Amino acid sequence: MKKASEIGHTVKAFDEDLGGLRALICEMGGLTEIALTSTLEALIHSNKELAAQIVEKDKEIDALEIEAERVAMRIISLRAPLADDLRDVIAAMKISGILERMADYAKNIAKRVPILQNMVSIHPVPVLPVMGEMVSEMVRNVLDAYAARDPKKALHVAEYDMEVDGLYNNLFRILLTYMMEDSGRISTCIHLMFIAKNLERIGDHATNIAEMVYFAATGKQMPERTRGKDLLASEGS
Amino acid sequence: MKKASEIGHTVKAFDEDLGGLRALICEMGGLTEIALTSTLEALIHSNKELAAQIVEKDKEIDALEIEAERVAMRIISLRAPLADDLRDVIAAMKISGILERMADYAKNIAKRVPILQNMVSIHPVPVLPVMGEMVSEMVRNVLDAYAARDPKKALHVAEYDMEVDGLYNNLFRILLTYMMEDSGRISTCIHLMFIAKNLERIGDHATNIAEMVYFAATGKQMPERTRGKDLLASEGS
Repeated sequence: MKKASEIGHTVKAFDEDLGGLRALICEMGGLTEIALTSTLEALIHSNKELAAQIVEKDKEIDALEIEAERVAMRIISLRAPLADDLRDVIAAMKISGILERMADYAKNIAKRVPILQNMVSIHPVPVLPVMGEMVSEMVRNVLDAYAARDPKKALHVAEYDMEVDGLYNNLFRILLTYMMEDSGRISTCIHLMFIAKNLERIGDHATNIAEMVYFAATGKQMPERTRGKDLLASEGS
Repeated sequence: MKKASEIGHTVKAFDEDLGGLRALICEMGGLTEIALTSTLEALIHSNKELAAQIVEKDKEIDALEIEAERVAMRIISLRAPLADDLRDVIAAMKISGILERMADYAKNIAKRVPILQNMVSIHPVPVLPVMGEMVSEMVRNVLDAYAARDPKKALHVAEYDMEVDGLYNNLFRILLTYMMEDSGRISTCIHLMFIAKNLERIGDHATNIAEMVYFAATGKQMPERTRGKDLLASEGS
């Protein structure tokens, strides 16, 4: 039988380890947030040096995912967490994977910046930066929700997701008209469509994290949300 | 100190549990393979009933991912696996997530089948079914590689990925010419582009699994592969 002081010591050691892992996730989240806001800056101001930096810095985020997995496995091996504690560790590992994918999408947007510079330009499409700002807000809020274990904040992130999907469908239609007016713009518009798709996917991933935060805090699945469907631009989920 | 027979019993119990989890992954992989080949069938033959079935059956695959996570957590809690055994369990959990995402892409392709039926059609584009067949082959082979813990087979899957990327870039250019010839075809071609993108992503995910199988079997990262870049269709990674 363990002495009370030994049990206390073990709990404290696990709490410190888990705290360290969660801090690592928050650090990774911060870098992912920066990758996203920087890539939007690079896109809107056609800044290919900034875009190149984002592509380069993505390796740091990839390295943090590997680190998070290593730390999670170490905690599992050393502390043998059970039940909610084990779920916390596994959740951190899953979230690090989601953040890595979000940062990858930001990097893919950045890669298109120099390509777009060499193409026929179109009028600025205000819906795109609005969509970008909304997705950045989602990422910021979901990381706060994770750090604070806040299910209300997580719920708000999921509600934003529907608005982002609506903007995405609108953007699609706008770009379609540009393409139909002038076939010389088709390549440019297709790049912008894929950029919009990448943003929409980042939003989806932020919502995934929000669902995990909500479940961890409440023990329940987030309520189903009904999305408006747009048949022309219908991109599926 | 555990008796030799007790240790043997514990090892046997873990092996059975891990075997069960790996079998679950193979089952999930089989359903994902079917989702992909069926969706290509539905697309090529414009079969919206089949497409609807694929969308419906995706829930089974989602359920298996939840089951795989549950089983993995149970094994970790009950058997306290260490080192390679723990990595095996974590790898199975990660692979179930990758398979779920692959199946989601197959479902997204299926969702476009009825939409395409209502649109201007274009000449069949043979590159698309060729690309689809190649990606199906990758999925089939990577699941075999996983089941057999075969690093050579895993390496071949990764090599296929470069060919798939090449076909994707070709397809992009082909669709671009259709769009420039006739603006009435733009919507149709954009759907086909997104379908091709979904296939390319499925191929990427199969390569992810291949890299994990290779690492698990050899202890080393798969060698870097150099990809040809196509500046016009440059989709990034």
